[in-house]
Amino acid sequence: MSKKIKMELQCPMPKFDFDFITLGHGSGGLLTNKLLDSGVFDVLSNEKLDKRHDGAFLKMDGEIAFSTDSFVISPIFFPGGNIGELAVNGTVNDVAMCGAVPKYISLSFILEEGLPMTDFWKILVSIKNACDASGVLVVTGDTKVVDKGKGDRIFINTTGLGSVHPKANIDILNVKVGDIIIVSNQIATHGISILSVRQGLEFETTIESDTTNLNHSILSLIEEFGEEIHLLRDPTRGGLSSTLNEISRDAKKGITLQDADIPIDNQVRSACEILGLDPLYTANEGVFIAIVSKEKAENILDKMKSFENCKHAAIIGSVVSDHPQKVVITNTMGGKRVVSMQVGEQLPRIC
Amino acid sequence: MSKKIKMELQCPMPKFDFDFITLGHGSGGLLTNKLLDSGVFDVLSNEKLDKRHDGAFLKMDGEIAFSTDSFVISPIFFPGGNIGELAVNGTVNDVAMCGAVPKYISLSFILEEGLPMTDFWKILVSIKNACDASGVLVVTGDTKVVDKGKGDRIFINTTGLGSVHPKANIDILNVKVGDIIIVSNQIATHGISILSVRQGLEFETTIESDTTNLNHSILSLIEEFGEEIHLLRDPTRGGLSSTLNEISRDAKKGITLQDADIPIDNQVRSACEILGLDPLYTANEGVFIAIVSKEKAENILDKMKSFENCKHAAIIGSVVSDHPQKVVITNTMGGKRVVSMQVGEQLPRIC
Repeated sequence: MSKKIKMELQCPMPKFDFDFITLGHGSGGLLTNKLLDSGVFDVLSNEKLDKRHDGAFLKMDGEIAFSTDSFVISPIFFPGGNIGELAVNGTVNDVAMCGAVPKYISLSFILEEGLPMTDFWKILVSIKNACDASGVLVVTGDTKVVDKGKGDRIFINTTGLGSVHPKANIDILNVKVGDIIIVSNQIATHGISILSVRQGLEFETTIESDTTNLNHSILSLIEEFGEEIHLLRDPTRGGLSSTLNEISRDAKKGITLQDADIPIDNQVRSACEILGLDPLYTANEGVFIAIVSKEKAENILDKMKSFENCKHAAIIGSVVSDHPQKVVITNTMGGKRVVSMQVGEQLPRIC
Repeated sequence: MSKKIKMELQCPMPKFDFDFITLGHGSGGLLTNKLLDSGVFDVLSNEKLDKRHDGAFLKMDGEIAFSTDSFVISPIFFPGGNIGELAVNGTVNDVAMCGAVPKYISLSFILEEGLPMTDFWKILVSIKNACDASGVLVVTGDTKVVDKGKGDRIFINTTGLGSVHPKANIDILNVKVGDIIIVSNQIATHGISILSVRQGLEFETTIESDTTNLNHSILSLIEEFGEEIHLLRDPTRGGLSSTLNEISRDAKKGITLQDADIPIDNQVRSACEILGLDPLYTANEGVFIAIVSKEKAENILDKMKSFENCKHAAIIGSVVSDHPQKVVITNTMGGKRVVSMQVGEQLPRIC
C-alpha cells in the first residue's frame, strides 16, 4: 500500500491543456503526440519504449510465453483496483500460468471521447504501479479514440511476453489420474466485489477485488518443484468451474472436488447466497489452480501458504479416471453433482 | 484474388445455433467455448493455438520485434477490405518496419452484443486469408463482449512478434543528413476509400483501400540492402506528414520534400480536392517510408518498383541539416512551406 501512495506522489498529474479525451487524441498527429508527451511517456519511460518506433526490439532467451487479453470491465474503478492494474495483472498472470517469467507487455488503449483526463491519469499511474510490482516493462503501445457512445470510457488490451522457466513443464498432456488440484486462495472475491458496486450493496467491510500479480509466487513454486507442477490456470471469467471443465475436457480426464474444501471468505459466501450466485461460477483475479503430482502436493501446498497472496491455498480435489471430461463435486452431506461450464452470462464485463 | 475465393469456399460459415453475438459469448463459459469451437478454432487452427492454454509457447531466434495495435475502423467493411485483414496487415507491417520477419500474432476481439454472426464470420475468414498471405500464425487470443451501445460492432487488437533480420539495422539514430526518403506507393488511398463510403461518394472506379502486407517486400529489401536502409515506418493515421514530422523530431534533423514527386492516384487527388483534404495528412495502409543511404537510393528504388505493392515507389525528399525537426515541402512553383504534424482529427477511426 505504501508503494502505491509513494508512486502517486511521484506522478502528480501533469498540466494538460485539455480536460477530456477528444477524437483528435487518436489522430496519430499532434494531439496524440501531446497526450503521449505530456506525461504518458514519462510515467512509463524505459529505454525500449523511449525509442518510439512502431515496435520494440527485445532480446529473450529460450522458450517464450505469449498471451493477450482485452479488458472491458465496468465500472472502471472498483474496490481494490481499477481497469489499469487489472489489465497488467491479468496478462502478467496469464504469462505466469505458462510457467514463464513475465518481462514485457504491450499496452493498447481504446478511449471513448469525453473520458476525463483525471481518470486516464489515475489508470496510467496504476498501470505503472502494477508493472513495477510484477517486474514487467511496457515496451510498445497504441492509443485509439472512438466517438462518444461507441465505447465505454476505456478498454485496454495488454499482451505479454515472458521467458519460460527452464524447470517448468506446463502442459495439459501432463495432467494424470491421481494428480491433486490446489486452489491458491479464496474464490469469488473479484466477482462479488464488482457486483456489489454495480448493485450498490454494502457489507460489514468492503469486499475488495483480489486483483494482484501471481508471477512471483509461481516462480518460487517452479524453482522448487519444477515438473511436479503439471498445469497452472487462473480461473477468471467463468470462475473455478468453467476453468476446471476446460481442463477436464482437454485432458480427457475426470475431476472430483470436495465442496467443503474450497476456500471462500464468509462475507463473499453470504453475498453469493443473497445474490443467488454460485461461487464456483463467480470470477476471480488473484487466484490460480495448480494441478500437481500426488507425491509433492502437500509440500507444494505448504510452500504456497507461506505466500501472502496464497495464504488460503487448499487442496480441493483430484484428477480421476471415472467420468472423463466431467467435473463432479461432493457436498458436505456426501451428495454428488456434476458441475458444468457456465451457461450464459452471470456477470457481464467482469474483466 | 483467386486465393481469397478459394479460402471462402474452404470456410463455409458453420451452422451456429445463434445468429447474433450475445453477452454470454464473452462469459468465459459454455457460450464462449461454443463460439470458439464452432469454427473459430477450425479456421485459425495451428499446433500452438490448438493447445488452448492461457498463452502460447514459442521458440524464436535472435532479436525480437514486438508491436501492438487496436483497430476501431468504421465502417468495418469498406472497399478493398475489412477490419479483420486490416488488423492483421497493420500489425504485420509494424513488425516489418522493425526490419523483422513477422511470425506470430495474438488476436483479441471486443464484440458488441448484437453483432451478426455472418459479419463475424466474414471478418474471421479475412483474418485467416491475411495471415496466410503474410505468413503469420494466430497463436493466442481473447474474446470479450460488451453490451449493446457500449462498443461499435467489433474492435480488434492484434499484437505481433517477428524475428529481426540479422542484416537489418533499423534505428532512428541511423538517420543521417543526406539520406534519401522513398515512399513505397501512392499515398492517401486508404483514407479516401473510407471517407468515400462514409460520405456516400461515387467515383468513376471505386477507390479501394490499399491494405496489404508489406513484409515480403521489406524482407527482400533487407536481404539485398541490409544496413543501407536506415529507417522504415508506415505512415498510417496522421498520414505521410505526421510520420515524417515524428522522424524529423526524433532524429533531430530537417526533412525536405518535393511536392511533385509524391505519388498519388489522380482520382484520389481529385477526391482530396473536392473534400478539402490534404493528401499529406490522409491515412495510408499499404505504404511505407524508407530512409536510405544516398549511395544506394536508386538501386533500392529500382528494386522496390519491381514489387507489385510498391510499383509507384518514388524518391520524395531527403534528410537535411537545415531547419532541424521541421519538414519543409517545395511545391511545383518553387514555393516552400513547413508541413507540421496533423492538428486535431481529419478522419476519425480510420484504422
